[in-house]
Amino acid sequence: MVRENEIRVGEKQCALPETDDAGLVFIGTIHTPWTSRMETPRQGRQDGPVCRIDVLPLFAPALAGLEHYAEVEVLYWLHQSRRDLLLQCPANDGNPRGTFSLRSPVRPNPIGTSRCRLLRIEGASIFVQGLDCLDGTPLIDIKPDRCAFTPIAPPQKGDFEVAE
Amino acid sequence: MVRENEIRVGEKQCALPETDDAGLVFIGTIHTPWTSRMETPRQGRQDGPVCRIDVLPLFAPALAGLEHYAEVEVLYWLHQSRRDLLLQCPANDGNPRGTFSLRSPVRPNPIGTSRCRLLRIEGASIFVQGLDCLDGTPLIDIKPDRCAFTPIAPPQKGDFEVAE
Repeated sequence: MVRENEIRVGEKQCALPETDDAGLVFIGTIHTPWTSRMETPRQGRQDGPVCRIDVLPLFAPALAGLEHYAEVEVLYWLHQSRRDLLLQCPANDGNPRGTFSLRSPVRPNPIGTSRCRLLRIEGASIFVQGLDCLDGTPLIDIKPDRCAFTPIAPPQKGDFEVAE
Repeated sequence: MVRENEIRVGEKQCALPETDDAGLVFIGTIHTPWTSRMETPRQGRQDGPVCRIDVLPLFAPALAGLEHYAEVEVLYWLHQSRRDLLLQCPANDGNPRGTFSLRSPVRPNPIGTSRCRLLRIEGASIFVQGLDCLDGTPLIDIKPDRCAFTPIAPPQKGDFEVAE
């Protein structure tokens, strides 16, 4: 069972800072088959249902060239998640885990990341497999997966540094 | 050469929305050997210099259990990056690319993601290899890498759905 808003036995809450340190702009909306948190996958799968990412018209020109990549990284804002749990019990068994040791959507900055299969781009709509989020989830970013991307900018000193 | 703030020939700027759609809280600070954008690696390497991530005391309890993972995903705020370029020329050769087809730090929501080797945790300090960011970069999130993590919460319907 997914949490809605309850705090479970064994969980530890905190008071978050009252002011934000940085602001996000939503660049689009993700459409998936899942309309309830009781249905979403725990993790996306690359043979999962085809999902559509609609990028806002303002940002559509920034998609140029993305079609060359078969794997993309998608970042999204888990807008229904609470943000104030330090310890949580994913199995609701009274066994608390640190939030940063989980990939739970409940975290101080509820950002989901998925590696997705890019199927095609039609205008400002991107069709992918591998997402795990609710229908209507705000899009934050999309970029080539790090395993597929070779930097175009010339190398810098740091590229050649290794641990001593 | 890394951009400082200039716009290069062939690049395309936009006016970002004036209001934020969501707010981030910084949960810590990343310490790396790089103090200038002219030095940072284009991509982190897992045999790269050891970096230290200091988590704020408020959030330190949320680290419990992270030590069980050898690979972690780190999200950070690229605080020196401009956010308003739709097309950019990473090689400064007049050849523009869409921002979302790059892993450039310049993007509407300048969030960096790295997959890092977790070496050890001492109190609220996490020692990792694989980062590519400036010393002093704000930390947004840390979680087990998706390849290493098995959900603890019970499966849901979506976990078993595949494309038709």
